[in-house]
Amino acid sequence: MGMVGGGKDAFIGAIHRIAANMDGLIELVCGALSIHNDVAKESGKMLFLPEDRTYLNFEEMIHAEAKLPADQRMDFVTIVTPNFAHFAPAMLALENGFNVVIEKPITFTLDEAKQLKKKLDETGLMLLLTHTYSGYPMVKEAREIVKSGKLGKIRKIYVEYHQGWLSKLSEREGNAQAAWRTDPRRSGKSGCMGDIGTHAAHLAEYISGLKIKQMCASLNTVVEGRMLDDDGAILLRFEENATGVLTASQVAAGEENALKIRVYGENGGLEWAQQEPNTLTIRWSDKPAETLRAGSNYGDRESSYATSNCRTPGGHPEGYLEAFGNLYRNFILALSAKMNGEEPHKEWLDFPGVEDGIRGMAFIDNVVASNQSDKKWYDHVVE
Amino acid sequence: MGMVGGGKDAFIGAIHRIAANMDGLIELVCGALSIHNDVAKESGKMLFLPEDRTYLNFEEMIHAEAKLPADQRMDFVTIVTPNFAHFAPAMLALENGFNVVIEKPITFTLDEAKQLKKKLDETGLMLLLTHTYSGYPMVKEAREIVKSGKLGKIRKIYVEYHQGWLSKLSEREGNAQAAWRTDPRRSGKSGCMGDIGTHAAHLAEYISGLKIKQMCASLNTVVEGRMLDDDGAILLRFEENATGVLTASQVAAGEENALKIRVYGENGGLEWAQQEPNTLTIRWSDKPAETLRAGSNYGDRESSYATSNCRTPGGHPEGYLEAFGNLYRNFILALSAKMNGEEPHKEWLDFPGVEDGIRGMAFIDNVVASNQSDKKWYDHVVE
Amino acid sequence: MGMVGGGKDAFIGAIHRIAANMDGLIELVCGALSIHNDVAKESGKMLFLPEDRTYLNFEEMIHAEAKLPADQRMDFVTIVTPNFAHFAPAMLALENGFNVVIEKPITFTLDEAKQLKKKLDETGLMLLLTHTYSGYPMVKEAREIVKSGKLGKIRKIYVEYHQGWLSKLSEREGNAQAAWRTDPRRSGKSGCMGDIGTHAAHLAEYISGLKIKQMCASLNTVVEGRMLDDDGAILLRFEENATGVLTASQVAAGEENALKIRVYGENGGLEWAQQEPNTLTIRWSDKPAETLRAGSNYGDRESSYATSNCRTPGGHPEGYLEAFGNLYRNFILALSAKMNGEEPHKEWLDFPGVEDGIRGMAFIDNVVASNQSDKKWYDHVVE
Amino acid sequence: MGMVGGGKDAFIGAIHRIAANMDGLIELVCGALSIHNDVAKESGKMLFLPEDRTYLNFEEMIHAEAKLPADQRMDFVTIVTPNFAHFAPAMLALENGFNVVIEKPITFTLDEAKQLKKKLDETGLMLLLTHTYSGYPMVKEAREIVKSGKLGKIRKIYVEYHQGWLSKLSEREGNAQAAWRTDPRRSGKSGCMGDIGTHAAHLAEYISGLKIKQMCASLNTVVEGRMLDDDGAILLRFEENATGVLTASQVAAGEENALKIRVYGENGGLEWAQQEPNTLTIRWSDKPAETLRAGSNYGDRESSYATSNCRTPGGHPEGYLEAFGNLYRNFILALSAKMNGEEPHKEWLDFPGVEDGIRGMAFIDNVVASNQSDKKWYDHVVE
Repeated sequence: MGMVGGGKDAFIGAIHRIAANMDGLIELVCGALSIHNDVAKESGKMLFLPEDRTYLNFEEMIHAEAKLPADQRMDFVTIVTPNFAHFAPAMLALENGFNVVIEKPITFTLDEAKQLKKKLDETGLMLLLTHTYSGYPMVKEAREIVKSGKLGKIRKIYVEYHQGWLSKLSEREGNAQAAWRTDPRRSGKSGCMGDIGTHAAHLAEYISGLKIKQMCASLNTVVEGRMLDDDGAILLRFEENATGVLTASQVAAGEENALKIRVYGENGGLEWAQQEPNTLTIRWSDKPAETLRAGSNYGDRESSYATSNCRTPGGHPEGYLEAFGNLYRNFILALSAKMNGEEPHKEWLDFPGVEDGIRGMAFIDNVVASNQSDKKWYDHVVE
Repeated sequence: MGMVGGGKDAFIGAIHRIAANMDGLIELVCGALSIHNDVAKESGKMLFLPEDRTYLNFEEMIHAEAKLPADQRMDFVTIVTPNFAHFAPAMLALENGFNVVIEKPITFTLDEAKQLKKKLDETGLMLLLTHTYSGYPMVKEAREIVKSGKLGKIRKIYVEYHQGWLSKLSEREGNAQAAWRTDPRRSGKSGCMGDIGTHAAHLAEYISGLKIKQMCASLNTVVEGRMLDDDGAILLRFEENATGVLTASQVAAGEENALKIRVYGENGGLEWAQQEPNTLTIRWSDKPAETLRAGSNYGDRESSYATSNCRTPGGHPEGYLEAFGNLYRNFILALSAKMNGEEPHKEWLDFPGVEDGIRGMAFIDNVVASNQSDKKWYDHVVE
Repeated sequence: MGMVGGGKDAFIGAIHRIAANMDGLIELVCGALSIHNDVAKESGKMLFLPEDRTYLNFEEMIHAEAKLPADQRMDFVTIVTPNFAHFAPAMLALENGFNVVIEKPITFTLDEAKQLKKKLDETGLMLLLTHTYSGYPMVKEAREIVKSGKLGKIRKIYVEYHQGWLSKLSEREGNAQAAWRTDPRRSGKSGCMGDIGTHAAHLAEYISGLKIKQMCASLNTVVEGRMLDDDGAILLRFEENATGVLTASQVAAGEENALKIRVYGENGGLEWAQQEPNTLTIRWSDKPAETLRAGSNYGDRESSYATSNCRTPGGHPEGYLEAFGNLYRNFILALSAKMNGEEPHKEWLDFPGVEDGIRGMAFIDNVVASNQSDKKWYDHVVE
Repeated sequence: MGMVGGGKDAFIGAIHRIAANMDGLIELVCGALSIHNDVAKESGKMLFLPEDRTYLNFEEMIHAEAKLPADQRMDFVTIVTPNFAHFAPAMLALENGFNVVIEKPITFTLDEAKQLKKKLDETGLMLLLTHTYSGYPMVKEAREIVKSGKLGKIRKIYVEYHQGWLSKLSEREGNAQAAWRTDPRRSGKSGCMGDIGTHAAHLAEYISGLKIKQMCASLNTVVEGRMLDDDGAILLRFEENATGVLTASQVAAGEENALKIRVYGENGGLEWAQQEPNTLTIRWSDKPAETLRAGSNYGDRESSYATSNCRTPGGHPEGYLEAFGNLYRNFILALSAKMNGEEPHKEWLDFPGVEDGIRGMAFIDNVVASNQSDKKWYDHVVE
């Protein structure tokens, strides 16, 4: 693995390294860790990278690595820069034969995402988009339960993602995270909906298996002086007549990272909340509610997707880093299988990719357009 | 107390009697308990009513009671009939000098509600509208905390009321409750939003102290063959730039009576859920979350509205019936004070009345109109 | 109902009145509400008692009521005085043909309890001992689940009752409740174990259906200056080789009324906590945990004992007062059936009586003796 | 890091590797992973170990590594064999100048533990004993809160560790974990108390800062045919007149890994449960309960011990593996500092060591002796 961005003090870069590192299957071998040369060098040292593979920019890294013998060069590039700087390294990596991992949202514009898809189709390379929350075993279990039909036809989806960390104008108070995420030149045309609304939309579609068809969005910039939306709500219409509501806020003061989803069918509903991720509750119309627990051993009752994404037995809580690690593990296992000409397990192929990225970019575009429209319903066209 | 409706097998009539009875301050002295004579008589017997005060219709009851000496006749009439049959007995009671308790929604149409207000203004009589959930001590505490300013300016209100009991077409399977509540001739122009959406809207305004100004509603009739909405979601704009979302559903299969509200201000947010009503959670941006408990003794930290609406010390859970009882207790204490020419405690005056009823009827009208409109925003005009 | 004790400002007397009153089946007709004449009179007035049935002591009340015509006199006496003053009015009531309700513990000494039993056997009268917690529907459901054998043979019982209200020497600070409950002359030979340990022991035996056979008790007087135990723990051996632990504390600072029980069998375990009483959790070895909810309608899955002790549908929380009311309701329904020569429903006979009282008194005696013994195990002899 | 034991299919070896690997500070460089040569070799291959550092037994490994140049050989040995096989490799490692990590319990007998301590004192080498649960940030926060005196003098400690995985005679059904843990020749003189009771005792002393002085233990072998205790309860007397109760069970059917502790002082109590480890609840006598969350930023309100043991912001749950990783991280940071002649941060020195191991072995001895004694109290002598 080579890393673009993620120098010291970057939040998500460190997360990616722990996640990639967790299962002993992936090694960080090189990096272009910062656009500031001194930071890049210092970060490389802190991460025990050899000096000659501590690069000063992604072009240098990709070209140099491409010249190394196949068994020495990195197998894939992880891109953890701010959104506006995703596309260029990703495209260059693909052009030079490297697989790619990208922090979401996949690119700055929808068009860039489509270009990446085209290149992936041409090259047959692989891309992992780190929609972390789909890496949790109980999220996978939820999807499998929906798929099994036990809940009956899905009617209703509520998904919410509430944080409070932007309750003040932190971008003006030296918070680097806040600064780029609220800056349209670095983050894109939406703040809150781009940053966390996309996670919520992805989760809703991932679990329900239903695509959003129409939306009615209302975005707010609550904190005075902010440049992008920091809050919003969207009425949703899904395929097959299901409806839903998505709320996302970064000014829900006191909330940490409160992503929660509820999906109801004809016979019952399920609920999963990211902050207590090892529990999945299913409520039934005609019998007691059930609590499924990650790592538990219910025999046939638990899907292989849940069990293969746990490392420990029930009661030994796994969390955000393990969910992140699952994305990397499935990706590397699928990639290794492919490189070895073997058939990957179906569970290994269960990670978000470029299609999810395109839907996410279209979601941002359409939410912003819907918000600006006086008409109630706006078609969620993704093409 | 005299009761109109609420014969044997009626749900809400029994609840009203327990609530009224709870504190030993109110006695059921007469009733017109059913439009079926035999049910009326049998119900009267079961409730230990004297035969001569077991009336066969409300006109008979009100006229007969009005002729009794002041110290013998009922002090007020409780009306627990289906919605379409609220107005006539209420108006007749007021015309004959009786105070009134009405199960919500107050009337069948907004106009009827306004007529009641006019009559109340003329007569100086009192009316209690049983928006039960505002009777919970922790709801009152929530309102007081908002009012205190500790949370800062209110920015965001999420309120949800999810039930699953209409997940099937129960109105065709002999469920009498379901039958009238889904029948526009008896229930009104909205099903779910009229039945439970109004509770949610009332709670949001009650706790936040902010009025809804605009809405964007989308209603659904999920179960095929049903005549009214059984599900819906509304984007809300409140006074003072607060925004919110209200969701209500009676097809959230597996849910019981899941009314929950969250209110966020600049500094933190509060959360209250009806199914665990003795707890109020406050999350702060800069310090640990606090859990307030009904009946606890925190000295100055708990408002008199919370303490005066509890009967037992902390840890002895009070519930729905006690909340309902609080409405009756405050009403009868205020009424007694008035009848005795005394000054009521301010806590006694804290019960919903005709103004809340008018807002509720306008809410139903406007939600239905907003749902039918293609325009995103609809003004919530109440006049 | 006539009441002995329970004048204004008494805690448990007010609770008894609400509980008795709740279902409209019982009327307070007379009282000897205080040993202070003026308090007795004032309390009678507040409770709308006629002056001639506001008695100044229990002897006067019982003798006067006994002389009234059968259809006018009280049907039973409720005794809510401090423990030392239970026996005399109870015995006099029985001698004069009145049924009896007694707040637990039943008497001051084990011998008194046995005398009451003898008198009950002679007269055929009925006695209700208000072990409130066995009135909760989910406690009854727990008992039925154990009885059904679904959990397999019971192996382990943990029961705890933790309060914090005696964390300071409140009995010296004007707290009347604290004063009598920590005074051996009024409360008996144990404080904490007598007051709340007996509830815990009763609950354990009630749910498990197993009797305690041996104990190893260790009591503490944590707060300096206190005269009785305010904390303790007991290792337990039950019938059929089950073992358990009972902990009780009134110095668990910050706890309200935290009574909780867990019972494990070969196949799974159940958990019930008084502070969230409408939920019963069952964890299974080989399938997801189930959450049963009071008032829910699971068809055959819920026992008649649970359903007949609820007043409202699921999601309308019932609490402590309703549990207390269930004791009274079952008692009065059973009593009425008996007085009418009818067969009572089996559910009506499900209330604690004199046998429970005797076990409770023996429990107190044996716990105190075990605590004083250096030997590990002490036989819990009850004869 | 070199590893003794932990070949493929071993539970705890894999956990140690993930934990050690997590932060990119430790690399597995060699191993003697199994006593079966083929398993050892295959496991080495799976873990990417070079063939020449895949040893067939620990003696070979330690001697070979000792001969490598200082900058190439392993820095420490991790021992994850069954209990009976802890001492020999640990002692040999120390004798050859290697630091040691041992899975708890430290040794098979108390005497062995004391020998290790002697050798550590002589050599100045370091030892980490993986009492995992003390690695959780909220456990550290709990300890700091107790230490701060906010709760007042500690009075009461309840600690429980309940599992259900030995509810059946799994050791006869091919469960390798169950087989050695219930075998006195491999596990030691206690089963349940040795395996998990020691964790509970360690946690109680770690958080409260108080040592156990006396105990009254009762152990049970619930499942017929089992050779060691699978359940037990202990009354405890701590220093400074605090008392407590420890319960441990592996036959609490349906429970996963339910370790929970509650500590009460004069002013309030705290509660922490391993299965929801990111939350610490503090209940106060005179103000609302507080919920502290791992990773939150309360400024001065959170101790440096909590913050330095988190990797992610609040709301991104960390779990068991991260807690385990904290032990390794603190150990390696302290070790590196020492090797570099630098002063370690005080937070790095916060990991369990040989003293904890000795107390644990004495705990097992004394619990077994107390259980066999008819006397109520047994001194917990550790010398």
